[in-house]
Amino acid sequence: MNEIKIIESGEKFSHSTVGNLHGFEGKQFVKDATGATSCEISFGTLASGQSVPFFHSHRENEENYIILSGAGRFQVDDDVFDIAEGSVVRVAVNCDRNLKCTSDVPMTYICIQAKEGSLGGYTMTDAEITERESRL
Amino acid sequence: MNEIKIIESGEKFSHSTVGNLHGFEGKQFVKDATGATSCEISFGTLASGQSVPFFHSHRENEENYIILSGAGRFQVDDDVFDIAEGSVVRVAVNCDRNLKCTSDVPMTYICIQAKEGSLGGYTMTDAEITERESRL
Repeated sequence: MNEIKIIESGEKFSHSTVGNLHGFEGKQFVKDATGATSCEISFGTLASGQSVPFFHSHRENEENYIILSGAGRFQVDDDVFDIAEGSVVRVAVNCDRNLKCTSDVPMTYICIQAKEGSLGGYTMTDAEITERESRL
Repeated sequence: MNEIKIIESGEKFSHSTVGNLHGFEGKQFVKDATGATSCEISFGTLASGQSVPFFHSHRENEENYIILSGAGRFQVDDDVFDIAEGSVVRVAVNCDRNLKCTSDVPMTYICIQAKEGSLGGYTMTDAEITERESRL
């Protein structure tokens, strides 16, 4: 089972780790450790042939699933489609969802919950390039 | 260069892919393809010794960086810390950020922009378990 550990934090940032993603085991929700206020990120893995034991729906939060390794199938209400490493699946509120690993290797994924319709500006409409001495 | 492709979509979901994440090349922002309304997700990679060519700051969006492979260093304003596969770095608004790959192998990462302070309920306070026939 991968654990989450807080490494360091400051006024404007936090750094946690869930450890190695290759061979990731278990399920970890990171918001409590990172102090995030915009989304809840979770890491999960499913063994070959395994699906999440239940369908679920969300009231206010869109979910975005990112498949990191392996492959499988995803169901939204009664629609089913194939997913694989590199897939990004957006799921709206008020519908049922589940996923299953169909590859010989485990399917590892990230799920991001964030409030549907909440994003205003993004990328360069919210960001500005700044000048600072690099210590990297 | 990895491209983003829309695979399929329905009333409540969309499925896009950025292709294989092992050996990912380039930078891809996925919101336009997925139709996400809660966050902007991007995939990026830095070669050994490479950093993002500029610092930047955000006005309204928190960022969460997830390191998928490789290792490096992260700077927030004048604070610098080491990051590696499995790191989750939350960065608040109104501060400068940059990251550099210091491993022999490229550092691949995901960045999630979402509005700071926008998340209300999450996990089981926003979700409900539902019953549906599995077609997986």
